[in-house]
Formats: sequence, C-alpha cells, structure tokens
Amino acid sequence: MESAIGVLVSQFKAYAGTDGSSDTLSRDEFFKLVTLELPNFVKNAGDPVAIDQLMSSLDKDSDGELNFLEFWQLIGHLASKHGGFSQ
Amino acid sequence: MESAIGVLVSQFKAYAGTDGSSDTLSRDEFFKLVTLELPNFVKNAGDPVAIDQLMSSLDKDSDGELNFLEFWQLIGHLASKHGGFSQ
Repeated sequence: MESAIGVLVSQFKAYAGTDGSSDTLSRDEFFKLVTLELPNFVKNAGDPVAIDQLMSSLDKDSDGELNFLEFWQLIGHLASKHGGFSQ
Repeated sequence: MESAIGVLVSQFKAYAGTDGSSDTLSRDEFFKLVTLELPNFVKNAGDPVAIDQLMSSLDKDSDGELNFLEFWQLIGHLASKHGGFSQ
C-alpha cells in the first residue's frame, strides 16, 4: 500500500513540477496528467472543456491551481467509482 | 497511476471483506490494515489506542466503520505528509 501511495505522490510531483509552483498542478499540467495517466478512469479525458470543468470543480480555493489534497479528492472519487463503492 | 489506484482499492477490499460489511472497515480490519500495510506511514501503527483515536477522527458519520472515502482521507493525509506538501 505504501508503495502505491508513493507512486501517486511521485507522479503528482512529476507533473506539478513542469511549470510554476512545483507543489501545484496548473491547468496545462492537470490536462497532461489526466490525458496521459487517467485515460480509462476519467470520462472524456482528452476533451479540454471537460477537463476544465473537472478542474474548477476540484479547485476549492479557486486559485487556478490544484494542490495535492484537491487533486487527491479526484483520485478518491475515481477510486471509489472504480471500486464500485456507493458514492 | 491507474494501477496504483487499483492497488489501493483492492487492498481496501481485501481487509474490508473479512468481517461484517465488505464495503467498510471495522475497527479490527482497520487495525490489521494499518499495522500490516502502513507500518512506516502511520506513527504508532502497532498501538491499539493510537489506532482507535485515528479511526474515530476519520469516522465522520461515527458508525464505528470506515467507508472507502473516509479511509481515503487518511491515505491523502499520509500521502501529503510523505510528499512533504504543506497540510
């Protein structure tokens, strides 16, 4: 379990580090991450408009960036759906 | 990333399935999971009192069980600490 958590952390950092703050995902970084890493779990993963809506729904403090815990919420819902748990 | 999410889901299910509802972790199931799977990420992983406190802090609906999203919160905070992100 700890190694799976480590994978999610390191991949978040890999994408978050490309531009701006290395602790947050910009819109472009988020789009790349979803398209390349979550193609099966996220419906319309390649659709920029859908991804923009997804990002705004997660961006609780509306700073245009996703911090780790905001990102973690997305993964939680995807995991919950993938696991077949009632939402 | 999707495979790492799959690992976390399947391991949650493996522990949640041993007694009672297979969608939630009982106190015993949670204690086993933390002790065996998160020995490095959770301080005092072997201490029943510490684990009880941890479980109550996560059990938002206080039903004595942890559903997947309640459990996911714990993993998020552990991952955030592991990643060195400000909480």
